[in-house]
Amino acid sequence: MAIAVDAMGGDTPISVKVEAAVRAINDFGIEVVLVGSESKINQSLNSYHFDKEKLSIVNSTEIVEMNESPATSLRQKKNSSIRVAVDLVKSGNAQAVVSAGNTGASMATAKFVLKSVEGIERPAIATLMPSIHRKSPFVLIDIGANTDCKPLYLLQFALMGDAYARNYLNLDSPRVALLNNGEEEGKGYLELKETYDLLKQSTLNFYGNIEGKGMFKDLVDVVVCDGFVGNIALKVAEGTFDFIKSILREEIRENFISKLSYFAMKGPFEKLKERADYTEVGGAPLLGVDGVIIICHGNSKSYSLRNAIKHAKECVDQKLKDKIASEVLENIEVIQKAKNLNSEVKRV
Amino acid sequence: MAIAVDAMGGDTPISVKVEAAVRAINDFGIEVVLVGSESKINQSLNSYHFDKEKLSIVNSTEIVEMNESPATSLRQKKNSSIRVAVDLVKSGNAQAVVSAGNTGASMATAKFVLKSVEGIERPAIATLMPSIHRKSPFVLIDIGANTDCKPLYLLQFALMGDAYARNYLNLDSPRVALLNNGEEEGKGYLELKETYDLLKQSTLNFYGNIEGKGMFKDLVDVVVCDGFVGNIALKVAEGTFDFIKSILREEIRENFISKLSYFAMKGPFEKLKERADYTEVGGAPLLGVDGVIIICHGNSKSYSLRNAIKHAKECVDQKLKDKIASEVLENIEVIQKAKNLNSEVKRV
Repeated sequence: MAIAVDAMGGDTPISVKVEAAVRAINDFGIEVVLVGSESKINQSLNSYHFDKEKLSIVNSTEIVEMNESPATSLRQKKNSSIRVAVDLVKSGNAQAVVSAGNTGASMATAKFVLKSVEGIERPAIATLMPSIHRKSPFVLIDIGANTDCKPLYLLQFALMGDAYARNYLNLDSPRVALLNNGEEEGKGYLELKETYDLLKQSTLNFYGNIEGKGMFKDLVDVVVCDGFVGNIALKVAEGTFDFIKSILREEIRENFISKLSYFAMKGPFEKLKERADYTEVGGAPLLGVDGVIIICHGNSKSYSLRNAIKHAKECVDQKLKDKIASEVLENIEVIQKAKNLNSEVKRV
Repeated sequence: MAIAVDAMGGDTPISVKVEAAVRAINDFGIEVVLVGSESKINQSLNSYHFDKEKLSIVNSTEIVEMNESPATSLRQKKNSSIRVAVDLVKSGNAQAVVSAGNTGASMATAKFVLKSVEGIERPAIATLMPSIHRKSPFVLIDIGANTDCKPLYLLQFALMGDAYARNYLNLDSPRVALLNNGEEEGKGYLELKETYDLLKQSTLNFYGNIEGKGMFKDLVDVVVCDGFVGNIALKVAEGTFDFIKSILREEIRENFISKLSYFAMKGPFEKLKERADYTEVGGAPLLGVDGVIIICHGNSKSYSLRNAIKHAKECVDQKLKDKIASEVLENIEVIQKAKNLNSEVKRV
C-alpha cells in the first residue's frame, strides 16, 4: 500500500512535504509516492536517510495555485500534482492522497476522478474537535465542502461521520447530534427540523440537537451541520483559542509574579495545546469519495503532514469507504424518504 | 426616566431582580419600576435601604414560563410581567424594559406592542464580543432573533449594528463586516453575495467578509450574520472558553508546581474573565423596535442585571432608535434595491 503525497500544493516549500514523507517512512514504515517536480523533490531528498524502497516519485509538471478557481484548474491543469496524485489512486497505484494544496481544487479533483461512494450524493469534510473528555475528541462534519443544507445531505453526513467515529475513535455506538440553535426538538429552520425527523428514523444512535456550547462537553461523538455553519464553528473555536492565548500572554507580561510563575505553568499550557491541537491528526478526510483523501492546512508543518499520511493509511486499513457504503445500505429506506422530501437546496 | 424591570421572568428567584433594581438605584441613581407580584416584591424589598422615590412597583398577575411558546403567551397572558412592562414603555410610563425571562416571549411581546422603527423589517439582537484589543469589543448581530437570511434583513442588521457601535462603543466610523466562510468577495451562498453587494453600496464603512477566526482580532467593529449563525458563533465561543478553562484547571491540579504557581496566575485569569465576560454589559438589546428592551440570560445574577439596567438607560439617553431611523433614511435607496431582489426568505 502506498500513500500519494502532493509535494507541490500548499503555502510551504516542497522541502516540507518531502520531510513529512521521509518521517512517515522512518517513523511508521509507510510507503509513500511523492508527486511533483521530480528534480526538485530529488534535490530536497538529498539530505535524508531512509529506506529507498519505501519511496517513489511520480513527476508532474503543473501546480494549482492556492487562489486558483477549482473548476478552472480541474479543466485546464491535467498534469497538476493534485490531479496526478488522485489519478494514482484511481488507477490503483496508490491507495490514498494527502494534500496541503488548494482545498477547493483537491475536493473537486477527488470528486471528479474518484466519484462518490454509491448512495452518497455529496462528499463532506470531517474533522476532529477536542472535547473536555481526555481521550475522546468528537467529529464535526461538514466543515466546508458544501454550503447548502438539504436534509438528504445532512443525513448522509451523519452516516459518514458515524462510520468515521466507529473507525477512528473506536466507538461501538457513536452519539450523533445535529448542530442547532437550541436543544429542543423543533428548533432551527425547516431543513433542520426535517433532518431531525430523518435522523430519528435512521439506524444511528441519535442524540438530538446540540448547541455550539454543548459540543465540547463530551455529550456527543459526531456533530452534523452544513459546511457553512461548520466552517463558522471551526473558525470561531480557533479564534477564541487564539484570543485567550493572546490575552493571557499579555496579562502575564504585565504582572511580575505571574511572569515568574509562568514557567511553572508551561506544563499545563503545553498540555492544553496538545489536547486542542489539530496537528496531531494532521488533516481532515473528505468522506464519501470512492478513495481516501486527506485535506491539510496550506501551512501545515512536516510533523502535521507526517501525521496526515499516517491518518490516510489508517483510513485505508480500516476500509472506511466500505463502512460508509454499508451504513448507506442499512439506511436505504430513510434515505429514500429524504429524497422524497419537497425541500429544495436552500443554499447554493 | 424610568426603567421597567421584569421581576418574574428568568431562572432565578424574584429576590435577584429586586436586588438588581436596588443596586441600580443606589449605584447609578436610576429610577426603576419593578413589574410583578406586588406582595412578593415588597417582601424582597424589606431588607434593603434605598431612595424610595426612585422605585415604584406595578403589579402583574401572570408569569410566562421559560419553556412556554412565545405566540401562546403573547395571546393568552396579557397580564404577564413582561407584557405589563412592555406596555409601560408603550404608554410612556417607562422608557425601557430589562428582562431575564423567556427570550422568545420578550421579543414577540416587544415586536407586537412597540412595533418596529420605521423602515426596519426585522428587529435583531446585538451583543458585544471581546476582541484582542484591550478597550474595544465588537458588536455581533443577529444572535438569535431571526433564523432566516434575506439580504434586506442582513443589510438592516448592519445599519442597526453600526448605530449601536457608534453610540455604545463611541466610534466615528465603525468597520462593518459580513460573517462568511472566507474573506474574498464572492464567498458564501447567494444571499451573502447579494448582501455583500448591498453593503458596498451603503453609507457604511464596509470592511468586506470576515471569517470566524478573524472576528476577534480587532479588524472590525460590527459583524453581521443571521440569527442562526450568530447563535452558533456565540455558543461555540462560550463553549471553547469553558473548554479551555476546564482543561487548564485539570492540568494544573495534576501538576504540583503548577498548583503552587496557580495562585500567582490568578490575576491574569481574573483579567481574562473580565475581558471576555458578557456580564459587564449585562444584556443584549433587541435593536429595531420602537423602544428599548434589553434581553438578559435567564440565570443572570444581580450584578449582571444591574448593568443591564444601566445599559438600558444608556440606550435611551443616546437615542439609539432615532439614530437607527436616520441610518435607515440615509440608505433608503439601497434598502429599496434590497427589496427588489428576487431572493426569497430561505430559512424559516
